[in-house]
Amino acid sequence: MTVARPDEVRRFNRSSLLRLLHIRGPATRAALAAELGLNRSTIKMLVDGLAEDGVVEEKVPRMARGAGRPSLLVLPQPQAAVVLAVDVQVEHVGIALVGFGGQIMGRNSWNLRGRQREPDELITHVAESSAMLAEDLGLRPVAAGVCVPGVVRRADGLVHNAANLRWGEVALGQRLRTVLDLPVTVGNDAEFGALAEHARGVGRAAADAVFVSADVGVGGGLIAQRALLRGSAGYLGEIGHMTVRPGGRKCYCGNEGCWETEVGEAALCRALGMPEHGPRGAIVAELRELHGDWETRLADYLGWMTLGLVNVVNILGPELVVLGDLFAALPEPAIARVRDQVHRRSMVSRAFGGVRIEKSGLGPDLKLLGAAEAAFEGVLTML
Amino acid sequence: MTVARPDEVRRFNRSSLLRLLHIRGPATRAALAAELGLNRSTIKMLVDGLAEDGVVEEKVPRMARGAGRPSLLVLPQPQAAVVLAVDVQVEHVGIALVGFGGQIMGRNSWNLRGRQREPDELITHVAESSAMLAEDLGLRPVAAGVCVPGVVRRADGLVHNAANLRWGEVALGQRLRTVLDLPVTVGNDAEFGALAEHARGVGRAAADAVFVSADVGVGGGLIAQRALLRGSAGYLGEIGHMTVRPGGRKCYCGNEGCWETEVGEAALCRALGMPEHGPRGAIVAELRELHGDWETRLADYLGWMTLGLVNVVNILGPELVVLGDLFAALPEPAIARVRDQVHRRSMVSRAFGGVRIEKSGLGPDLKLLGAAEAAFEGVLTML
Repeated sequence: MTVARPDEVRRFNRSSLLRLLHIRGPATRAALAAELGLNRSTIKMLVDGLAEDGVVEEKVPRMARGAGRPSLLVLPQPQAAVVLAVDVQVEHVGIALVGFGGQIMGRNSWNLRGRQREPDELITHVAESSAMLAEDLGLRPVAAGVCVPGVVRRADGLVHNAANLRWGEVALGQRLRTVLDLPVTVGNDAEFGALAEHARGVGRAAADAVFVSADVGVGGGLIAQRALLRGSAGYLGEIGHMTVRPGGRKCYCGNEGCWETEVGEAALCRALGMPEHGPRGAIVAELRELHGDWETRLADYLGWMTLGLVNVVNILGPELVVLGDLFAALPEPAIARVRDQVHRRSMVSRAFGGVRIEKSGLGPDLKLLGAAEAAFEGVLTML
Repeated sequence: MTVARPDEVRRFNRSSLLRLLHIRGPATRAALAAELGLNRSTIKMLVDGLAEDGVVEEKVPRMARGAGRPSLLVLPQPQAAVVLAVDVQVEHVGIALVGFGGQIMGRNSWNLRGRQREPDELITHVAESSAMLAEDLGLRPVAAGVCVPGVVRRADGLVHNAANLRWGEVALGQRLRTVLDLPVTVGNDAEFGALAEHARGVGRAAADAVFVSADVGVGGGLIAQRALLRGSAGYLGEIGHMTVRPGGRKCYCGNEGCWETEVGEAALCRALGMPEHGPRGAIVAELRELHGDWETRLADYLGWMTLGLVNVVNILGPELVVLGDLFAALPEPAIARVRDQVHRRSMVSRAFGGVRIEKSGLGPDLKLLGAAEAAFEGVLTML
């Protein structure tokens, strides 16, 4: 139990304001005051303090004419706090510097296709790229967020297992902290995807949402009451390893018929009659080529996708499910079919009048933005 | 976003103290101060206030001898706040008055076996029993908590569907509020079971726990970061309706091979070669009679039980799973086998070194205590 002291109130208000500016972007003083339930003089004091520290700039809004003094527009300054975001995927690594407000200020990416993905090499590459970006842009990151397709211990960033990278027990957080000399938050990629959707995507208005990442592996990130669920020691959301088909294909996790083995990238390739582990672009192109024949070619695939989503909705009762990666690349009518079936077959969805199922709209930057959000969590309270 | 004002701090401290006394029972001033991080004068002021209001009594602890002034023992007074708890089950309804501190002060129960379970009759019975108990005990409840084996909308206590009671769309919360003239909280029985385990059972120390209720139906209540997960509109935790066996038995929910159809009461009866829907006592007696032969007779049943638990652990990453009702009545070696298998087959359990799987120790009062906790949630902040 924590107890709020009067002198903590100001700090709490300041960090609430910073979070609001970071997520919503520019806003008038009046709008910020209304949103936070603060009076005019408190908001003035807080904004003046942030302006003095160079975290925001205040401007008279261009449109404001006519009677009365216009409410000043408060603009977050991206360079006031910059974080390093790293998105480790099976096929490539994305690296970016992201500013206060969520703006990507510079980036590069590294193709891993057909290469070894040794942790040593990755760590060296991240350190070099980060230094180069920082120098090019004249910015210095104050924290880093890194996402990995695997089971990660949030406390220290130990990658317990990232089967699709062939990693086991890699002390990634600790090693990156040493090399980068920064606070580093490492997490599961689907979890950070959920963070990004919650902060900047279709999940902004949803208090309870599930983000489903269907890539080489299948994972989930769970938002409950506007916060990311962590689970014990930060392990949770391995929805790809719920058994949906007892006696089905062997999974590396030791079970059979996991959701991942039925709807992951390899399963989609099999459904499309393509070689497994084909390049992502070829899979997406093949999906685009499907016209009337999606119903027959994807029938089984969509059946397992639906079954897993019904389970997720019945267990977690989210108001929104966000489909990422390959799920989002499925033909629109196929998604509409899944949406309809999940609603009809989920008791919980029927009870509350229908879970929304939407494609992620944040594109390929989704997990990079999520990694940035994870890094910002610690930064915004200290700004 | 909420903002703490200085004048809210005292109220917050007072309600933290009330909650602590309610859950932990009698404690010295010194222990309470330490636990809440408050100094001596603050705790004195708060306790004095509660004593004046008759919510606690202070006593010199009997054991305290020797040097120094002993820290006064603070005793919660059960009659200071009394709630009505109602546990609606398929076979019976339990009703109790529960005092501040969680003590059951009086109770009665109503056998429903072989009877109609009409909402009208139930509501009349609850009102009459409550009035009788209150008169007998000379106590007046200030709120009520009611649990039902079904899908319940938390906001107003609408029972959307309680298939095993054959109820659909019953405005139970609203109707009980009118009849009892009290604030009434209605919820799913497994959810309230989780509340009780978290407050008073094996789940007290666990930040992330899942309570699994295996009764006529199978349900779950999820504790995350020491709070009950609610889901959208309060619907969640229908873990009994995850599909574990595609193509399995038809379930009333519209799917096939739900966990409930494979491990609910009827499935256990089938495994034991008993008629389905036999009296609970006969099932428990039959389980007690199993000796060496549990392995063969329960093999399939335990297989489905394990599969469902692996899914729950992989998805939610709890540190603790509490087995209630019929699961808790299984032979000890069968539970040990399930425990071992779940750990070995769950990637998430392996990652964090082992989920604990324990039987509920709160016995048949579990859900009644949970219903009381749900009622106390609104009461403790107002005392």
